[in-house]
Amino acid sequence: MTGQEGAAELRETASEAPRRTPVEVPAGTLLDHHCHGVLRTDPGPAAFEAFLTEAEWPAAPGTSFFDTQLGFAVRRWCPPLLGLEPHCAPERYLARRAELGAREATRLLLRGSGIGAYVMDTGLPGDITGPDELAELSGAPVHEIVRLERLAELVADTTRDADAFLAELAARIRSAATTAVGFKSVAAYRYGLDLAPEPPALHEVRDAAANWLKKRPNDDRLRDPVLLRHLLWSAVATRLPLQLHTGFGDPDLRLHRCDPLLLTDFIRATRRPGTPLILLHGYPYHRNAAYLAHVYPHVYADMGLTLSHTGARAGAVLAEMLELTPFGKLLFSTDAYGLPELYVVGARLFKEGLAELLETWTSSGAWSPADAHRVTNLLSSQNAERVYRTPPSPEPRPR
Amino acid sequence: MTGQEGAAELRETASEAPRRTPVEVPAGTLLDHHCHGVLRTDPGPAAFEAFLTEAEWPAAPGTSFFDTQLGFAVRRWCPPLLGLEPHCAPERYLARRAELGAREATRLLLRGSGIGAYVMDTGLPGDITGPDELAELSGAPVHEIVRLERLAELVADTTRDADAFLAELAARIRSAATTAVGFKSVAAYRYGLDLAPEPPALHEVRDAAANWLKKRPNDDRLRDPVLLRHLLWSAVATRLPLQLHTGFGDPDLRLHRCDPLLLTDFIRATRRPGTPLILLHGYPYHRNAAYLAHVYPHVYADMGLTLSHTGARAGAVLAEMLELTPFGKLLFSTDAYGLPELYVVGARLFKEGLAELLETWTSSGAWSPADAHRVTNLLSSQNAERVYRTPPSPEPRPR
Amino acid sequence: MTGQEGAAELRETASEAPRRTPVEVPAGTLLDHHCHGVLRTDPGPAAFEAFLTEAEWPAAPGTSFFDTQLGFAVRRWCPPLLGLEPHCAPERYLARRAELGAREATRLLLRGSGIGAYVMDTGLPGDITGPDELAELSGAPVHEIVRLERLAELVADTTRDADAFLAELAARIRSAATTAVGFKSVAAYRYGLDLAPEPPALHEVRDAAANWLKKRPNDDRLRDPVLLRHLLWSAVATRLPLQLHTGFGDPDLRLHRCDPLLLTDFIRATRRPGTPLILLHGYPYHRNAAYLAHVYPHVYADMGLTLSHTGARAGAVLAEMLELTPFGKLLFSTDAYGLPELYVVGARLFKEGLAELLETWTSSGAWSPADAHRVTNLLSSQNAERVYRTPPSPEPRPR
Repeated sequence: MTGQEGAAELRETASEAPRRTPVEVPAGTLLDHHCHGVLRTDPGPAAFEAFLTEAEWPAAPGTSFFDTQLGFAVRRWCPPLLGLEPHCAPERYLARRAELGAREATRLLLRGSGIGAYVMDTGLPGDITGPDELAELSGAPVHEIVRLERLAELVADTTRDADAFLAELAARIRSAATTAVGFKSVAAYRYGLDLAPEPPALHEVRDAAANWLKKRPNDDRLRDPVLLRHLLWSAVATRLPLQLHTGFGDPDLRLHRCDPLLLTDFIRATRRPGTPLILLHGYPYHRNAAYLAHVYPHVYADMGLTLSHTGARAGAVLAEMLELTPFGKLLFSTDAYGLPELYVVGARLFKEGLAELLETWTSSGAWSPADAHRVTNLLSSQNAERVYRTPPSPEPRPR
Repeated sequence: MTGQEGAAELRETASEAPRRTPVEVPAGTLLDHHCHGVLRTDPGPAAFEAFLTEAEWPAAPGTSFFDTQLGFAVRRWCPPLLGLEPHCAPERYLARRAELGAREATRLLLRGSGIGAYVMDTGLPGDITGPDELAELSGAPVHEIVRLERLAELVADTTRDADAFLAELAARIRSAATTAVGFKSVAAYRYGLDLAPEPPALHEVRDAAANWLKKRPNDDRLRDPVLLRHLLWSAVATRLPLQLHTGFGDPDLRLHRCDPLLLTDFIRATRRPGTPLILLHGYPYHRNAAYLAHVYPHVYADMGLTLSHTGARAGAVLAEMLELTPFGKLLFSTDAYGLPELYVVGARLFKEGLAELLETWTSSGAWSPADAHRVTNLLSSQNAERVYRTPPSPEPRPR
Repeated sequence: MTGQEGAAELRETASEAPRRTPVEVPAGTLLDHHCHGVLRTDPGPAAFEAFLTEAEWPAAPGTSFFDTQLGFAVRRWCPPLLGLEPHCAPERYLARRAELGAREATRLLLRGSGIGAYVMDTGLPGDITGPDELAELSGAPVHEIVRLERLAELVADTTRDADAFLAELAARIRSAATTAVGFKSVAAYRYGLDLAPEPPALHEVRDAAANWLKKRPNDDRLRDPVLLRHLLWSAVATRLPLQLHTGFGDPDLRLHRCDPLLLTDFIRATRRPGTPLILLHGYPYHRNAAYLAHVYPHVYADMGLTLSHTGARAGAVLAEMLELTPFGKLLFSTDAYGLPELYVVGARLFKEGLAELLETWTSSGAWSPADAHRVTNLLSSQNAERVYRTPPSPEPRPR
């Protein structure tokens, strides 16, 4: 079977629309369309600091991860939610946090974040909450995104036969599509986005699966480009929104292989099924992601952890994103993980940054106040609500 | 004949200076050194909206191309020129436009744009005006730029013999050089800028031409990299300014293959004839274009459709361009096409954005008011006036 | 010997810590951790102008290198130090400079720059000052950085035998490590940063050396990628900070081959010795450099000539750098060369730009004033003081 035939077959299996609860938020709150679970227990000071960076090693001698835009943003926004003054010393903040206990601190922070609904990637390991616990702590509904590579790894744990693996994987993806609101791929840091754009042929997938299963459990992580492509196309076939990691955000990655432009031919190949593709994070290639969202109808953009990590610069970076991204195509997320503080700063930086931009643009006359209000709602929640209901794909325009 | 010899031969044919009218504008107005024709008839609402994007498909479900920086800029600047309030609803604006009729609306918009002269790329098809009609509608002189690929396609329509094709092409380029003020290449989106930098050998050109002519008319568009290089070097030999599409701006392109830095070796190879090369658009690689204009004497930069599409951000993007580009090297253009509105927003965003920047820089003391005034004139028209008169190439500095 | 063994051997030679004077500056002044010598004599007007650009040819006809952000910055900051009004005409400024004489003008400018200590790359040719002369003219201590490629070229001048060359080179590097505070590589514009990341095997180095020595003196400059890698790894083995040119800054370079991300695998390979790597300049890839400084403990970032060349935009570019770079990881430098004016503008643009940014961030509440003050000290001198004392390498974090 050729790649072309593989694509055709995958597309055929996509005929039935999945059933899910629509994603909605209360008025005035944010829909965080991409986040992870929070820690169940109080992290020590070192572990807390480690969550403030994408590095996987300790800070350089004489430096601290608190001395970053993210560290300063945490110290700005979070102490007041725990009854302290903004910018208090890290030690004071951590002491107060420990005094309250992880559960109470987490509740206070999440409920003070301004987020009204979550879409959570459940594919991260560690002692972190699942969707139900996050819902209970935050008092807001939590929807699920299934991480493709993690799903494949879980399936691989149960079999060493390639055919059985592929059949079970297909079944698990089908099943996930009935409950989750979308899928996510981290191919960017498992291999890079410089993947061949077309679906792999079945025999290639089978060979790759057999090879990988043989190497496990020594090399547990799925990094094979053929299998990564198989996962992408399997998700595309469900027509559910597919989140794609792009840009910075994991110490394993080679940043220049995470430029979303490397996805251009994959994007062109998936235009016909029209499955929504959401390019996450993007930084420092966020203008490239904006360009793709501008040109291709089924492509959407997100800034994810970019805003949290750029702190006082979040509004400036958001402004760059709002150059080419159509206003109906940008989604809000925090990409928060582990610390409830990260939900708070992601949400506050977005709201503050956007408000400041729109204040500038309306006061100069560039935008009307009514448009500014409307775009705020689109970006805060309405775009995500629309996308995660998976609208039908657009037809090509007659030329 | 080797590539080197091909280059030598091409350079020899460039000995005679072409005769053209100098390009000038009335004081206080802009010289738009890169634009296209306007529609002769009233577009319907859907066609109007389609001109607001570089995508070639309809907007995603639930979204509109009016909800973009360009859409908002059109609604800011154009309604007042037709007697309406800024930011009125698209429907109201389009109704007023229809009421006036295409011709009257076009006249009002063009004459309100602040553009005092045009340099027009005549190589786009469709029911759009030629230079004379644009001149009549706008009341401003219009000079011509010849699009190389279109010229080659027109020649190819009349012959299937490679030698005859090449001879006729050479004659047409020579002839164009006596009336047009420059040439333009869209090699960026026909192939990519990752072309071999040296002129192709004659036998390669002949083979490529024979091949292409055989495939026509099934594959009409000139995409062959050897022929694209032949066109570039043929234009270089005329010594007339050569505009090169770089960056975003056509749905066919692969953006990362339009990075102007991919032209570096071509730029080095053309330094000796010294033919002015003008890098158009550039976004999001505009800082790279600025770098090339900084380092190489015969390279100039432009922002073209970048300002229109970034709207409220046009001043911010222009500021990035003014980091490395020498102030004698940046040219203004709208890249407007089809809608007269696009001339208006391109011109207004440039003027407003530049004025705001210079206000900031002079009030902080970074620039003197006299310099700000002088640079405004350079960018608005004087740089283009100088370049399109084709100054002699600079000699290498003694090292 | 394999590359791996080569690395092991190089690492073993690094066991002894070098002895040097600690690098410190008086309170309130800057530590310029990367600069060059100044001219000993008065440049003529043409030579003066030539120092305002990274181009190596005269300005395009009708343009001037004074009409650049750098030219305007020189005219803003330098005339008052010589008793003239800011923004006076270039001719007036040059006349005053000539009247004072090179020595007095240089003294006035350097002593008015606000720089309290220098770290000087001594590897540039020409009639420029050495460290002692710069110290005397400026009244501030000057430490030395040894340029690897220049050192190798000097050694190559004295021998044509590969083994003798390599032995002498090793001895000179060992010796330099006892007096200099670090090394510098310009591999970026001798070859490109797309070098193989691992140390070359000894037999490869020997072959490459023999080859290069044979070609000399016709092709004097060291451009061989194997020898460039050998120099890099030889410097890494000393554990002294290693400055790496990245981004723009020399007319020889191909900018896209100077993206610091091309160093990612070299950075990963050097994490274990932990030798501090300082990515110089970076523009327009400075956000990529910031990312590397964020993720890798031994990587530091600098903006060097970026601030001087972007002038009125220096604060805006610095802001981009302060998105991901941890505040303990960004170092100040001027990259000044030849003109004492370049020390002045590099220093003033940094101080003014940073002060303006921090004023914005503290007045919005994003940063506390105490943090702003602390970060100013880190960036101005403390980070460089810490790095050039060569702290021990961090251990990997337990995962």
